[in-house]
Amino acid sequence: MSETTPTDAEAACFEAGIKFGSLYHQFAGTPLSPDSAASIETAMEEAIENQPHCEEVTVDVREDELEAALEEAAADYTELTGRFLEVEIIVDYDGCEVVTRMAMEDGYPLMRLESVRER
Amino acid sequence: MSETTPTDAEAACFEAGIKFGSLYHQFAGTPLSPDSAASIETAMEEAIENQPHCEEVTVDVREDELEAALEEAAADYTELTGRFLEVEIIVDYDGCEVVTRMAMEDGYPLMRLESVRER
Amino acid sequence: MSETTPTDAEAACFEAGIKFGSLYHQFAGTPLSPDSAASIETAMEEAIENQPHCEEVTVDVREDELEAALEEAAADYTELTGRFLEVEIIVDYDGCEVVTRMAMEDGYPLMRLESVRER
Amino acid sequence: MSETTPTDAEAACFEAGIKFGSLYHQFAGTPLSPDSAASIETAMEEAIENQPHCEEVTVDVREDELEAALEEAAADYTELTGRFLEVEIIVDYDGCEVVTRMAMEDGYPLMRLESVRER
Repeated sequence: MSETTPTDAEAACFEAGIKFGSLYHQFAGTPLSPDSAASIETAMEEAIENQPHCEEVTVDVREDELEAALEEAAADYTELTGRFLEVEIIVDYDGCEVVTRMAMEDGYPLMRLESVRER
Repeated sequence: MSETTPTDAEAACFEAGIKFGSLYHQFAGTPLSPDSAASIETAMEEAIENQPHCEEVTVDVREDELEAALEEAAADYTELTGRFLEVEIIVDYDGCEVVTRMAMEDGYPLMRLESVRER
Repeated sequence: MSETTPTDAEAACFEAGIKFGSLYHQFAGTPLSPDSAASIETAMEEAIENQPHCEEVTVDVREDELEAALEEAAADYTELTGRFLEVEIIVDYDGCEVVTRMAMEDGYPLMRLESVRER
Repeated sequence: MSETTPTDAEAACFEAGIKFGSLYHQFAGTPLSPDSAASIETAMEEAIENQPHCEEVTVDVREDELEAALEEAAADYTELTGRFLEVEIIVDYDGCEVVTRMAMEDGYPLMRLESVRER
């Protein structure tokens, strides 16, 4: 087993993970309806963009999925959870750019590293 | 000791408390800067207005307090907490209207009942 | 329409609502498994009991519901939500005792006032 | 600029970041007192250990810092924030072990990568 000082790319990936975990667990559980979808998207983007090394956050509420859930439950609103989200986060750490995404896969919200680019 | 079925006014006050606790504990800890203050205000208002019996939510981020805190800490952002918030929530439960407010008092964010009006 | 200064019973109901909203929105979204159910129950109880006028909080994770959900999803853990919770909160405000409960009703977690007792 | 498929070490660092962001933003804002410190430590550890690739989470509430804050504010409880926490998280992703820590530095809670070890 070899131990090394973390590289810039590894630090960038760590930072990207922090942003994803923060975004998800800060906002999961928020009351959500089609009328409030746009404002929570913007607030999530701008809140997480405050964090260090965070270049850009894009949040889309999957409105068709949301409307289907509300119809099935005969409800006016529900709670924000991964099922209703598509998220892209771009981190830049010392010139190393990491692109990450969250989307549904086999019925689960999966966060994953898309690319790591060093200048 | 006498036990009674809760009145509409009591149920309205219970509902108003739920909204306040929800608002505070859903959003406390959110990364906050002057640039993101407006979007979190709107998102908090629209999210909590989804809840049953909730007529109107008004959230103001106290921007002078926020800027003072950032200057003191030489920081670009901080975490949302009661110190930075003024909130009014109006609940209507079966014709009983309850007005509640949160503001700083002696250095603490205090949530309180302003008025209970029955038709 | 008549406006009155809130009674102690109304203030007690407001306080009880705050505790419920706090408990739910602080902890909704927490990663949850049968192994971690006991520790989150205790932490939720003790955290909310810190709040003013809060006499007692009892949280039960509905383990059969949790195990059924995990089996259906072929997953090891899920997120804490109202479906997995039974909660009782007792508030005492200036001698007025309010008992509140959250449990599932028609597929929804419902928070309600059980009783209001004045000495 | 060169783009590469993320390495196992980078994926491990991303996973470690997710755990940290999750832990912090799930539990920040929780009502906290010396009496409830032990139960929230355990709940945070067990909740985050549910997440994939998470080997071990160790949470210490800094009780002297907590008691100093309560004394200064003449309060019985406060809200959980980074100032009161020391956290270590160990992630194992496909044989790559990442150790991460959060502690105060210059008055701020700083999350950082301690080591990355590949077998």
